Amino acid sequence: MSKYWSALVSELKPYVPGEQPKMANLVKLNTNENPFGPSPKVIAAIKSELNDGLRLYPDPEGQALKEAIADYHVDFGIAPSQVFVGNGSDEVLAHVFQGLLKHDKPILFPDITYSFYPVYCGLYQIESCVMPLNDRFEIDPADYRRPNGGIIFPNPNAPTGRYLGLGHVEDILQANPDSVVVVDEAYVDFGGETAIRLVNQYPNLLVCQTLSKARSLAGLRVGFAVGNEELIEALSRVKDSFNSYPLDRLALAGAVAAFEDKQWFEDSVNGVIREREKLTAELEKRGFEVLPSKANFVFARHPEHAGEDVAALLREQGIIVRHFNKPRISDFLRITVGTADQNKALIKGLGKLSEV
Amino acid sequence: MSKYWSALVSELKPYVPGEQPKMANLVKLNTNENPFGPSPKVIAAIKSELNDGLRLYPDPEGQALKEAIADYHVDFGIAPSQVFVGNGSDEVLAHVFQGLLKHDKPILFPDITYSFYPVYCGLYQIESCVMPLNDRFEIDPADYRRPNGGIIFPNPNAPTGRYLGLGHVEDILQANPDSVVVVDEAYVDFGGETAIRLVNQYPNLLVCQTLSKARSLAGLRVGFAVGNEELIEALSRVKDSFNSYPLDRLALAGAVAAFEDKQWFEDSVNGVIREREKLTAELEKRGFEVLPSKANFVFARHPEHAGEDVAALLREQGIIVRHFNKPRISDFLRITVGTADQNKALIKGLGKLSEV
Repeated sequence: MSKYWSALVSELKPYVPGEQPKMANLVKLNTNENPFGPSPKVIAAIKSELNDGLRLYPDPEGQALKEAIADYHVDFGIAPSQVFVGNGSDEVLAHVFQGLLKHDKPILFPDITYSFYPVYCGLYQIESCVMPLNDRFEIDPADYRRPNGGIIFPNPNAPTGRYLGLGHVEDILQANPDSVVVVDEAYVDFGGETAIRLVNQYPNLLVCQTLSKARSLAGLRVGFAVGNEELIEALSRVKDSFNSYPLDRLALAGAVAAFEDKQWFEDSVNGVIREREKLTAELEKRGFEVLPSKANFVFARHPEHAGEDVAALLREQGIIVRHFNKPRISDFLRITVGTADQNKALIKGLGKLSEV
Repeated sequence: MSKYWSALVSELKPYVPGEQPKMANLVKLNTNENPFGPSPKVIAAIKSELNDGLRLYPDPEGQALKEAIADYHVDFGIAPSQVFVGNGSDEVLAHVFQGLLKHDKPILFPDITYSFYPVYCGLYQIESCVMPLNDRFEIDPADYRRPNGGIIFPNPNAPTGRYLGLGHVEDILQANPDSVVVVDEAYVDFGGETAIRLVNQYPNLLVCQTLSKARSLAGLRVGFAVGNEELIEALSRVKDSFNSYPLDRLALAGAVAAFEDKQWFEDSVNGVIREREKLTAELEKRGFEVLPSKANFVFARHPEHAGEDVAALLREQGIIVRHFNKPRISDFLRITVGTADQNKALIKGLGKLSEV
């Protein structure tokens, strides 16, 4: 607290990201990074921008990236003017909350979900109403039929990993023609189907994605949103009132190349899916309940061991997973799908459970 | 206008950055970029981060960069905990407005100043009161003795280029112990003295700087603020409620290297100052009135030609400068100091004025 702080500051409850420990030989399975690196074409594209040109501002509109994203989604008839780009999907989401989700009625999101949503509500003073997932930790579209100022949910959901089929997403869109429905698809590429294909049917649909997960570029900070031009204009107006140049020259170049190298992307995604299925089977063999995941992580609990204890046991062995000390999910661990070797190390580390 | 927009969105008057035209052979003197490139050590540092590590999130705190900035200012006794880093100084300023300048009373800034300030006021619904510069386009510290919720001004001011001595800055600090005084030093390295030396004397002082100008990294998007820990904590709380990872791995690595290579920095700054003085003399020879500048641009008017006409004449010749169609300064042009060749091209282009 300080007399110099705006009234808002002392009320804020900031988001706490998964830790980035600096220990050597760590098996880091706590922040849902891709175990495989980015495309060599991304590296090459960045290298070609790495010169005296850095003295110049980047394109404030990121037009080349908007075009690359539109081209990538050409089958869905997406134009560059339907794309918004930002400094990671967290920045994009922040602008979404301020520009599209602040209305007189409360917004709706699941009780178990990305924990940044309530933080944005605090930052922009938005009322929210939390809809409990059902007993199988699924979103029930019927819950989203009450008056609201907007709806947001990740699909697949985080940290559950559960995917809601597009038919159910359409149920929510159709029930809420006067609200913006934001589908936050950070993890969709690992087995889900994107709602971007619905954008031209539903003027109230905004789809957010990131390059941090399936495109292995968490370190580069690029996210984007796709929706009708009216929604994109709101985001652009907020962005142009906040920071003209959110994406640097290197990030723009790398992101364009990431969309162009489809083969690398598919191989990477398939590799993660393969490892996820193996990891799930191994966990189940050891007595874990694993929610069906379409993400690059699994959400699992052991009937005989508290989540906190399992996380601590792994940590002693240099294996970091994420534990949320929150109602309903405190027995679960969110485990990022790693490389085959990392996953083996995890399973081996869990062997010590039988000694507890 | 759209029913999906938050009430705020339609009220916003977004900032308009200087254009980034894509013409070939352009003499681009409109956005105050450094005519000299960044240090080769910056390029090398970024290259060394350009690998599979991009799949991992960056350090959310940017600790290495905070340490590099503190080290650079070691003579002033600055600790890393007194440094805040962000995605360009525009992002830093946005958080400053939201976290430190939103109070019950209006904030104060000059009438002629960085035109993003009123935009932030719109974004965060902050009242402001504009203090006219005097007839010599100087800030008069006596104007900043009225009740206020905070004070902000660039030093050197933009687009005038005029520098306010630190004694006058202290007058303002001393007259306002209950308000945050933000000194926005984007251009200070080109001949001014930084107020960072005053940070440990004045708990109400926040100094913002950027790597876009003197460090030739407009394309990399890095800015920072230095102040007492209480002020920095407010910014961190806002940032952690907005975007955990505003700086990507490459920007962090490059920015650290930029602070380490002091020789390159000094040579670059001295080169710009030398060219600025030559450019000023040439403009004066041609009848221009040039305000005394401590920035990497000059603000100049010709007694016989409207600013708009001169800008248009230059544009026809592929030379782009910035003209602001605003009260008191519509006869002026803001001309970025370029390389010797660019400045010669500008002076040659102005030769056509005598033919008008």
